[in-house]
Amino acid sequence: MSWTTTQVTAPAHRIDLGIGQPDPALLPADLFQQVSLEAPALAYGTEAGDERFRSALATWLNRRQTQPASAGNLLVTNGSSNALDMICTRFSQPGDTVLVEDPTYFIARRQLSDHGLTTIAVPMDENGVDILELAALIDQHKPAFFYTIPTFHNPTGITQSTERRAQLVALARDTGCPVVADEVYQYLYYDQPPPDPLASFDDRAPILSIGSFSKLLAPGLRLGWIQAPQAMLAPLIGSGLLASGGGLAPVTSSLVRPLLEDGRFDHHLSRLSDIYRRRLATLVQGLTDHLDDRLEWTTPKGGFFMWTHWRNGADTDAMLLRAHEVGVGFQPGQKFSASPEQASAMRLCFAFYDEAKLTQACERLSRL
Amino acid sequence: MSWTTTQVTAPAHRIDLGIGQPDPALLPADLFQQVSLEAPALAYGTEAGDERFRSALATWLNRRQTQPASAGNLLVTNGSSNALDMICTRFSQPGDTVLVEDPTYFIARRQLSDHGLTTIAVPMDENGVDILELAALIDQHKPAFFYTIPTFHNPTGITQSTERRAQLVALARDTGCPVVADEVYQYLYYDQPPPDPLASFDDRAPILSIGSFSKLLAPGLRLGWIQAPQAMLAPLIGSGLLASGGGLAPVTSSLVRPLLEDGRFDHHLSRLSDIYRRRLATLVQGLTDHLDDRLEWTTPKGGFFMWTHWRNGADTDAMLLRAHEVGVGFQPGQKFSASPEQASAMRLCFAFYDEAKLTQACERLSRL
Repeated sequence: MSWTTTQVTAPAHRIDLGIGQPDPALLPADLFQQVSLEAPALAYGTEAGDERFRSALATWLNRRQTQPASAGNLLVTNGSSNALDMICTRFSQPGDTVLVEDPTYFIARRQLSDHGLTTIAVPMDENGVDILELAALIDQHKPAFFYTIPTFHNPTGITQSTERRAQLVALARDTGCPVVADEVYQYLYYDQPPPDPLASFDDRAPILSIGSFSKLLAPGLRLGWIQAPQAMLAPLIGSGLLASGGGLAPVTSSLVRPLLEDGRFDHHLSRLSDIYRRRLATLVQGLTDHLDDRLEWTTPKGGFFMWTHWRNGADTDAMLLRAHEVGVGFQPGQKFSASPEQASAMRLCFAFYDEAKLTQACERLSRL
Repeated sequence: MSWTTTQVTAPAHRIDLGIGQPDPALLPADLFQQVSLEAPALAYGTEAGDERFRSALATWLNRRQTQPASAGNLLVTNGSSNALDMICTRFSQPGDTVLVEDPTYFIARRQLSDHGLTTIAVPMDENGVDILELAALIDQHKPAFFYTIPTFHNPTGITQSTERRAQLVALARDTGCPVVADEVYQYLYYDQPPPDPLASFDDRAPILSIGSFSKLLAPGLRLGWIQAPQAMLAPLIGSGLLASGGGLAPVTSSLVRPLLEDGRFDHHLSRLSDIYRRRLATLVQGLTDHLDDRLEWTTPKGGFFMWTHWRNGADTDAMLLRAHEVGVGFQPGQKFSASPEQASAMRLCFAFYDEAKLTQACERLSRL
């Protein structure tokens, strides 16, 4: 069996750690085997999304964040990519500059470019984005917004510290520069829970936190949300797109609401976290066993990705063809960054394959 | 019971013919009562949409159009509003001009404006857009595209003749100006079938035909399609949005595919057309009985809308408050056009209410 997915096509013999997606075997088909849609889910929904769904989601989120959100702070989206797309349409003009982290999620870059936006990369350290650099670039470029992945960052796995988040939120409030926080890995933690989502830090700051069920439940649902102060949601909710088509996900939100309410979602998420925790440990063990002397890495505490560097500075883009020959794959550093020091990086996803495959992949990587 | 819908809020005592939506009582909840999602529908889908769904849709469309389309000519969307949004992102730049019909669907105008586009209105006659005027405006403004509603036009109900369509397609091919055809009413005909959808006229012309299940089945599905030559679909399918999120509607397209394949969709559509045909006849009868001497109209042969004018040139925007007092509503002409002659127009929707309510509405309108 070979996988042809949205982002990657991999032949059956290759273990492609470049595939940054949930393992299809972990998709909870049992939760969607006997479902029934009521007539309200078939009608045009209200612009922000079904009120009952948003209330259930707010309740769920509020068990996991300090500052409570209400249904009025939530806009239902067709997943995080759709959220970023709408934000680009309503919060930027082509020709504008958008600040991103260095490195950053490569397809977010493509989405920004589709909207005619120029990206400038801001350096990160082990606690997240460099705030002084960010402040200077905001001052210099007056960007439309800053796009960040604060928790279990894609690709580096880094989580912004609470202190750094507070600084970032204060900077957003002081400068008025909106922060778009892509937090799709927020609830996939394998150690302590991460700091709160960015939008819950300060309801006066222009922060849009993007969440999604794609990694938590199933990407095919195309179901996510934006959490933000109401004033930040207003331009999105008041768009022609929503005035015409109504709420974005009446059907899929009606399928997920009962799972949020009765605990089946929590149960699934807990099981998923256990599996991913073991997969991460297996990947770390495999790298330690086979590549400890040649690779360096920091072990993430959640998410999907481990960011590794070849100690000898090898160019991973050039290495990919040889990797395919030995039956393994990864995402080369150049996809995420123009910085020369990232050219020796590989993003390895530990979510898509089971433990046996991950161990096998490490053995194959060691032949490079 | 009062209706709070996406576009209109109407108190229970008002019969608001301004609501341009399917009657909630006609939403086919029975078709979605016992459904089951298979794992593939839960995974990231391919960018253009599920192949099996697109094949089933192509088969369905090909029974209704002369030039056959293949799955490769179809892109699955989250309804027509999402389709127009994606087309704006990929086929225009803010500051560009877009040509629209005069009058045109008022929320499409808002969507274009959200993308920073300037609209210029092109006059219509009883066979659709004025081709000579359109050609002159294309030459003068080099628009990003021309947005048209060729079949059972919103708000006028006009259907472009076959000859006019051929002229329009030839103009698009000759000038390279893309035509975005919003054809969401194409399959709701109450007399003879209308001419083929615009995209099926000439596969070398830059035509994007937008279709949707919102009016044919249920708006909450957020499921539609774009039919176009593959070269026109390529920028959409190759977008960062789809590279990141994958196909737009894996779940809802998997719910609708079996209905397309086993004839339940056809059966529903046939029943729906019968009901709407009777509602249209009832509205015409009511207007004839109560308002023949004061209103003029052309009876449409499909769709949702009847476009009427007060013979005395009364301003319908100013009239709306009084209409609400007598318990009736409509969409005033000014929403659709800046032309003075449309200020006396009302768009009346005959899809949302049953026959008794439509008769009652006419009686109430006669009190104005």
